[in-house]
Amino acid sequence: MHSPLFEAVPNFSEGKDGTKISRITGAVDAVPGLRVLGLHSDPDHNRSVLTFAGEEEAVLSGATGLAKACSDELDLASQSGEHPRMGVLDVFPFVPLEGATMEDAVRLAHRAGESLGRLGFPVFLYGSAATAPHRRVLPDIRRGGYEGVASRLEDSRWKPDYGPETLDPHKGAVAVGARPFLIAFNAYLNTDDVEIAREVARQVRESGGGLPAVRALGFGVGGKAQVSMNLTDFERTPIPVALQAVRSAAADLGVSVESTELVGLAPLEAILQAARFYLGLRELEAHHVLETRLYDPSGNRSL
Amino acid sequence: MHSPLFEAVPNFSEGKDGTKISRITGAVDAVPGLRVLGLHSDPDHNRSVLTFAGEEEAVLSGATGLAKACSDELDLASQSGEHPRMGVLDVFPFVPLEGATMEDAVRLAHRAGESLGRLGFPVFLYGSAATAPHRRVLPDIRRGGYEGVASRLEDSRWKPDYGPETLDPHKGAVAVGARPFLIAFNAYLNTDDVEIAREVARQVRESGGGLPAVRALGFGVGGKAQVSMNLTDFERTPIPVALQAVRSAAADLGVSVESTELVGLAPLEAILQAARFYLGLRELEAHHVLETRLYDPSGNRSL
Repeated sequence: MHSPLFEAVPNFSEGKDGTKISRITGAVDAVPGLRVLGLHSDPDHNRSVLTFAGEEEAVLSGATGLAKACSDELDLASQSGEHPRMGVLDVFPFVPLEGATMEDAVRLAHRAGESLGRLGFPVFLYGSAATAPHRRVLPDIRRGGYEGVASRLEDSRWKPDYGPETLDPHKGAVAVGARPFLIAFNAYLNTDDVEIAREVARQVRESGGGLPAVRALGFGVGGKAQVSMNLTDFERTPIPVALQAVRSAAADLGVSVESTELVGLAPLEAILQAARFYLGLRELEAHHVLETRLYDPSGNRSL
Repeated sequence: MHSPLFEAVPNFSEGKDGTKISRITGAVDAVPGLRVLGLHSDPDHNRSVLTFAGEEEAVLSGATGLAKACSDELDLASQSGEHPRMGVLDVFPFVPLEGATMEDAVRLAHRAGESLGRLGFPVFLYGSAATAPHRRVLPDIRRGGYEGVASRLEDSRWKPDYGPETLDPHKGAVAVGARPFLIAFNAYLNTDDVEIAREVARQVRESGGGLPAVRALGFGVGGKAQVSMNLTDFERTPIPVALQAVRSAAADLGVSVESTELVGLAPLEAILQAARFYLGLRELEAHHVLETRLYDPSGNRSL
């Protein structure tokens, strides 16, 4: 078994200035053993989302370097954008990957929180790393953005978990969390009626009494009605289960699913779930996949 | 893109003597960059099947070392076993893996054939590496085992592709080939009637007019009727297509598939085929799988 791997998905408040963005992401590039999996910069929201992965110490070091770079490069007082932000480094979730448990990710979130606190960021832990039930959900923590956080600092229920108990207006606060891998999965219906997609979305999503750990919205995309889903915990609701629900709700409305798409990456386990589900396999694990055996850096060469 | 990878699956004529077997496989262990994926030794057949993988030069070097070790350790004249064998190193297929085409595997088979020829083995190329249509199918090459090969050597249609045109009775001849990855996939029926499994097998296999590149037999395993399949070219007949045929043939006979199993390894592409097929995905490639991105040794760390 090699060391547990983690994904980190920092959201920082700069989506326009390429030079600043690359100086910030450069702090992650500089750490040996980290791999950048994606960078999405949105000029309208003036916000970037970086995805990187590696072992615990490397991820921690990348997280600290990135926070320092955000602090050096960005100034919340002069920043503007559509997205409600609470800090230059706004949200920082850690995700357990291969070999890692959610407990491992919670520990990493605490270590990162402590380290970011020492850099002068008030840190609010959320998700599985939350230290109280009312601080578990991200929107509750960031309600009202920077101003909202500032107004709640006097309230003992909203003291930061790490770092100063006052806000530096140039830096702001950061939400650090632990959560499962998020899968973005869309289903296209054989209709252009967006209202049907919206109705299907309402039926399948958790907030409408549908499937746990499923967020869903209806859109019109390329002349087709699209049910756009976020599976926020694919161990609880795997892709095939979400799709069955969409197919069934669509059928009730007289339409069907024409095709589907994965946006971004999916963990191998999510693909294996689908193969197991539909093929009726008694067992299918990562070590049954040839490539896993070829690339496992610690795999024994001989038997 | 990293270098193309190949799998090699040498079958050699020793399945009892652990010391000899480990001296032979040790020749592969000794080559840096090779990974042993499996070793199956069968004492009754007095035969072992080794599976290893790596880049072309490493695989070629492992193949040569293994052939030399077989030559040093084994003596066909004193060997006996149920399996009809034609040489101490009996069959040696090469399989294209990630980044490799069948043409690449054919070239590797030729290079390995030339090298084994220089070691004194008469080499017959088969499968995609065959140099004539009548030499394509392995059973045709090895018909009658050592004695059969010996009797055909005078026939110009059965001259070796490489190596001496006479047989050393201690060493024998070897069939060197190129073929696709073989997937072993079984379906268990909700009946104990083996005759039903046999009938399903007859209907789905290529030789019975069923699916291309599918071999199938019916067995009784653990009180269940089992349809045991070899998918010899999963690009032509993917797992879900084979399973649909079994489910349909089973339904016609009044039974159903209860569960399935993969024996040994399957390439990631075969799993992705299943996910694409059942989920209706517009696209799903290896680079959409998180782990592929994490472990691709040549993957760019930054964007």
